[in-house]
Amino acid sequence: MPVSHTDKMMLAIDLAKEAELLDEVPIGAVLVHEGKIIGKGYNLREKTGKTTAHAEIQALEDYNHQTQEWRLPIGTSLYVTAEPCLMCTGALIWARLDSLFYGAFDSKNASLRTFLPMIEKGLFDHRFKEVEGGILGDVCSSLLSNYFKKKRH
Amino acid sequence: MPVSHTDKMMLAIDLAKEAELLDEVPIGAVLVHEGKIIGKGYNLREKTGKTTAHAEIQALEDYNHQTQEWRLPIGTSLYVTAEPCLMCTGALIWARLDSLFYGAFDSKNASLRTFLPMIEKGLFDHRFKEVEGGILGDVCSSLLSNYFKKKRH
Repeated sequence: MPVSHTDKMMLAIDLAKEAELLDEVPIGAVLVHEGKIIGKGYNLREKTGKTTAHAEIQALEDYNHQTQEWRLPIGTSLYVTAEPCLMCTGALIWARLDSLFYGAFDSKNASLRTFLPMIEKGLFDHRFKEVEGGILGDVCSSLLSNYFKKKRH
Repeated sequence: MPVSHTDKMMLAIDLAKEAELLDEVPIGAVLVHEGKIIGKGYNLREKTGKTTAHAEIQALEDYNHQTQEWRLPIGTSLYVTAEPCLMCTGALIWARLDSLFYGAFDSKNASLRTFLPMIEKGLFDHRFKEVEGGILGDVCSSLLSNYFKKKRH
């Protein structure tokens, strides 16, 4: 299924920019099902004081609130501007996400790619059907590196 | 620091029983700092339709709501009636939890113990100072197995 991911990742990037306007680490996420956005969110950890307020969880909870369903519909894709962390990876497994597309790779190696081999071997009751990183990776990474550069000054 | 964990785990067990009354998988959790309960929660995934509504996350969010802080105070302990999953383990790392005491072991091996060696090797910026499982383990396990037995009938 060859699809252009650009338009959806651009939506996630727009959400990341909203986070940045609030002085939050700029990461954004959208959940897409049959071409429709079914959830969106951006990192809001500082403003909300909520440990779990990463973009992916905010997008999941947006979907949860709208539907009262903790499980995503079959065939849902997540577009997120940065590689998901351990917590978000776990939440996306519970939500039964099918496809996961992310932008910036996490340089610390404490994220999705570290755990993906275990997930793919069937450690959990669910595994992602499709995972791809580096989508608009340069744009997504620049957002983050510029944010941290400004913070240091 | 020899402490009796029984009283705190009993509080978590009481919370697990509240979950059961609502026909939720009976898991409860309390956060303790300097002898005081600073957060509590129980599994509410079905009732809330919230993917992340595990006992540990509910307890964290209880603390978050009260304090507007995403980070736990130094020296905080979590008592939870079951071994934390991947998502909750990740959230507890982000929250900078110091001590983690749990009851029932997860038989599926897709939980804390699987990832603990990686955490202890310093994969993340934070590691737990103390982790102990099996506290009132029989009581915590029975709660779960009785619940699932009833569900099957």
